[in-house]
Amino acid sequence: MGIDSLLRQTTEWLKGTGPEAEIAISSRLRLARNIRGIKFSRRASPEIRRRVLKLVGTAAEACETLRGALTVELEKRPPIDRQLLVERHLISRDLSPETQGAVIVGSGEVVSLMINEEDHLRIQVLQSGLQLKNCWKLADRVDSELEKNLKYEFSPEYGYLTACPTNVGTGIRASVMLHLPALVINKQISQVLQGVHKLGMAIRGTWGEGTQAAGNMFQISNQITLGKTEEAIVSELERIIIKIVAYEKQARDLLLKSSSPRLEDRVWRALGVLKNARLISSEETLELLSSLRVGVNLGILKKITRAAVNELFIHTRPAHLQKMAGKLLTSEERDLLRARLIREKLAAEAG
Amino acid sequence: MGIDSLLRQTTEWLKGTGPEAEIAISSRLRLARNIRGIKFSRRASPEIRRRVLKLVGTAAEACETLRGALTVELEKRPPIDRQLLVERHLISRDLSPETQGAVIVGSGEVVSLMINEEDHLRIQVLQSGLQLKNCWKLADRVDSELEKNLKYEFSPEYGYLTACPTNVGTGIRASVMLHLPALVINKQISQVLQGVHKLGMAIRGTWGEGTQAAGNMFQISNQITLGKTEEAIVSELERIIIKIVAYEKQARDLLLKSSSPRLEDRVWRALGVLKNARLISSEETLELLSSLRVGVNLGILKKITRAAVNELFIHTRPAHLQKMAGKLLTSEERDLLRARLIREKLAAEAG
Repeated sequence: MGIDSLLRQTTEWLKGTGPEAEIAISSRLRLARNIRGIKFSRRASPEIRRRVLKLVGTAAEACETLRGALTVELEKRPPIDRQLLVERHLISRDLSPETQGAVIVGSGEVVSLMINEEDHLRIQVLQSGLQLKNCWKLADRVDSELEKNLKYEFSPEYGYLTACPTNVGTGIRASVMLHLPALVINKQISQVLQGVHKLGMAIRGTWGEGTQAAGNMFQISNQITLGKTEEAIVSELERIIIKIVAYEKQARDLLLKSSSPRLEDRVWRALGVLKNARLISSEETLELLSSLRVGVNLGILKKITRAAVNELFIHTRPAHLQKMAGKLLTSEERDLLRARLIREKLAAEAG
Repeated sequence: MGIDSLLRQTTEWLKGTGPEAEIAISSRLRLARNIRGIKFSRRASPEIRRRVLKLVGTAAEACETLRGALTVELEKRPPIDRQLLVERHLISRDLSPETQGAVIVGSGEVVSLMINEEDHLRIQVLQSGLQLKNCWKLADRVDSELEKNLKYEFSPEYGYLTACPTNVGTGIRASVMLHLPALVINKQISQVLQGVHKLGMAIRGTWGEGTQAAGNMFQISNQITLGKTEEAIVSELERIIIKIVAYEKQARDLLLKSSSPRLEDRVWRALGVLKNARLISSEETLELLSSLRVGVNLGILKKITRAAVNELFIHTRPAHLQKMAGKLLTSEERDLLRARLIREKLAAEAG
């Protein structure tokens, strides 16, 4: 089973189901771990990193939660595969073939293990909607299963030791991707995000650190990893997310009441362009899909499913397009293929 | 038969037929005439202007070319009717109820007589496509028919005398409305228009003097009315129009060859927005209809007729919308109704 199989399978977190899925696209939780007595990946030699890869691989094979998993070693794959994995949120943009980076992807892309990024191992769980607690439970289970065969670097005083001091302790980072179009339209978004920031949470764009919040998508995550239990960290983030979700709901209600034709116009125009464009950039696609999502969630567009919108969100990214085409494409070729793909998908939805 | 009947009838010049109709929307010819021994309308008293109205009305009743004509006296109608007539190109924006302005509209809106504008009488013929010579023949016939019962102000030395010296002589103004999107895209348009200007022709926007060239529509007309025969004036204009049409065709061919996806994208997006928008301004409508027209003419859009595009061009204007609604509308109400009308029309075309 190669990496191309990912393109054909249904990704759990894109289903658009789960609690508060109208606003919370997905929940993600990762645990940073390192193997005892082995140098951190960035400081280790290729040989040592290959040993890490082997150790984690063997431990993963014994895990029930990772049965039938796909292993992708970046060293052995073309650059486009790496980009594909980034677009699917399976690896970070920092995972590199030069440092023997690899990922083990469980069924449905719910659980994945990133190997030889900053830390030897990062356990990741990704689910649809707002389900941080479930993510934590599952990550904890994977962690325990792996620990049967791996000895982690752990200090009784500090907790798990990690390459970067900001991860020391629990090694946990929980995040939720939120779609906040109404708060953006209402111009309340910066106030909300400032509040979130003051509460010690980080805000990022769709594709991680340093990326823009395209399509009104915002990723909110914890920054503190030390001095609290995982449960406390997850609960705290969840409480904040629930508040933001409530704000967004309120904003949507107001929007729907106050300027219904203007909002409907925006939604229908987005659909009109997506169904008809012959060339479309990835930026415009994100913006229009955001409006489409608003339309689906508010019941304006009844024939289109949330899953279809989520899928287009990922499938229209450059690496996905090129994997589907089976070759590298120029920017214009991508814009052409992207437009065709969107038309076909939306025609299938409406039919 | 009231003015509302105009909304229901098929207007000849909107049919999109006639020679070169892909580029030349319509041909128009008007003759300025004044009745002997009566002061020019602007200088006459209301009583005298009412007499002019009566004289022309009686003369028109005897014309075969005006059988079954509709007479609209602006004094007796609400302002919206005047605007409707302007939008249909049946009267100029200068025709006013304060000066007892009126219009007599022949069947299919091909022939019309404007009374008490600058001159006592203006005979107008409006036809689809490039048919200036036919327009002239028909106008000449109407003119002869009217002359049986009207004595015109005519000087053997100067010809027909008119209120404004620029019309003295033949009193003729011939014009063609051209759709020149490819020359606009190619950026050759200003060069072409400069050439036209140097040849002594005037260039105006869609709704006459001082209006913008919205939707890539340009009205080209003669400026000289004196010292040449009507036939010479019409032929000269026609020769120039044929050249511009050839330039536009060439530009379209090049466009189609060089950047087909970009052009197709523009056309399909215009259709997508027109078919889906819930609010749309008249300016945006003109722009998008222009792209739609390109698509119809180049065979990109096969299900939409040129007549439908032409009709939307007029029917989406503010007064038309309000007449259809049967009441005055706010700007937002018009944008809503305009969007609905366009959706319905295009849905009917595609079905």
